[in-house]
Amino acid sequence: MRISELGRDSGVAVATIKYYLREGLLHEGRRTSATQAQYDESHVARLRLVRALIGVGGLSVAAAREVLEQLDNPPETMHDLLGTAHRSLGPAVDEEVDTTAAEAVLERLGWRVESADRQAVRQLAAALDALEAADFPLSEEAVTTYARAMRELAEGEVSGVPVESREAAVRYLVLGTVLVEPLLLALRRLAQADASARHYGS
Amino acid sequence: MRISELGRDSGVAVATIKYYLREGLLHEGRRTSATQAQYDESHVARLRLVRALIGVGGLSVAAAREVLEQLDNPPETMHDLLGTAHRSLGPAVDEEVDTTAAEAVLERLGWRVESADRQAVRQLAAALDALEAADFPLSEEAVTTYARAMRELAEGEVSGVPVESREAAVRYLVLGTVLVEPLLLALRRLAQADASARHYGS
Repeated sequence: MRISELGRDSGVAVATIKYYLREGLLHEGRRTSATQAQYDESHVARLRLVRALIGVGGLSVAAAREVLEQLDNPPETMHDLLGTAHRSLGPAVDEEVDTTAAEAVLERLGWRVESADRQAVRQLAAALDALEAADFPLSEEAVTTYARAMRELAEGEVSGVPVESREAAVRYLVLGTVLVEPLLLALRRLAQADASARHYGS
Repeated sequence: MRISELGRDSGVAVATIKYYLREGLLHEGRRTSATQAQYDESHVARLRLVRALIGVGGLSVAAAREVLEQLDNPPETMHDLLGTAHRSLGPAVDEEVDTTAAEAVLERLGWRVESADRQAVRQLAAALDALEAADFPLSEEAVTTYARAMRELAEGEVSGVPVESREAAVRYLVLGTVLVEPLLLALRRLAQADASARHYGS
């Protein structure tokens, strides 16, 4: 199909498609002349993925490109997949953040976190710092409650990683992080609304 | 204290403090001359809160101002607090998003969500759309697992809302949303890292 049809099928404006082509988010079509190229279903699927990452996923174009590169070129070992998946995802955190409190939480939980996931440790440190700075510190017990809930979910998520191919595994890990996070947060707010209606509603 | 001391005590640059004053994020000091004002501990505390909201909370200056306005002027009834707290928080979602699938999820869960929380329903709809668009749909069972985990957390969160004042309640709800979300996501990633190390590590 031509680029105009690709636009129609994917619901993405042609100018945006050309931008994604220039930025390397979308693979080139099969050139049929100096000014024309043919696109296929693989382009429609990729465009939908790009829209999901940049839209709800909230990624920048640069971060989306990194994620797509991972999907196209998964790391060698299963062991590195998750760390690599997490590393390119936001939010970016100052590398200088003091991780002492975060390490103490992990120690208490008995969680094993390797160097590949330093970024997530810094994210935890920054989150704890912000709670402290806002004069809204959580009790150890509250942090443990959150951690237990996340651990239970993670157990199911990680044991569900598809093993048939590295491509499928990295896709599952990357999309399961980027796209499930907004779902989880929306569900948390709705669960709070429901609990609030039951507690305080008419 | 003078603005230079306020900068030192809070760790925020004087130019940034002046910007926050102009943007209405920080209350004016007590004017002592045409060009000078005195600041106190309330300014230090507010600056720390602003930094937390804009930093880890990831809010824009405009969104931070809305949140701070809520903290300063909480809504009249306990019943409206949560919806108001959620409404001013991101991510912004197209009001036109089709919420049919999201409503079906809520129906299945038996969650009661009122008009105040339409924004969260749209966030759920957008998250489900993105998963679908990325060709990574979750099973009903997976969504229910996430929902149950969030419901359990929400139950504790909502029953913990302080009742001594509207100020304390809205502070708890707003900060508990904005600042606990990054904590939750960091813990999820670390829990996945731990589970991955146990399943696939050496």
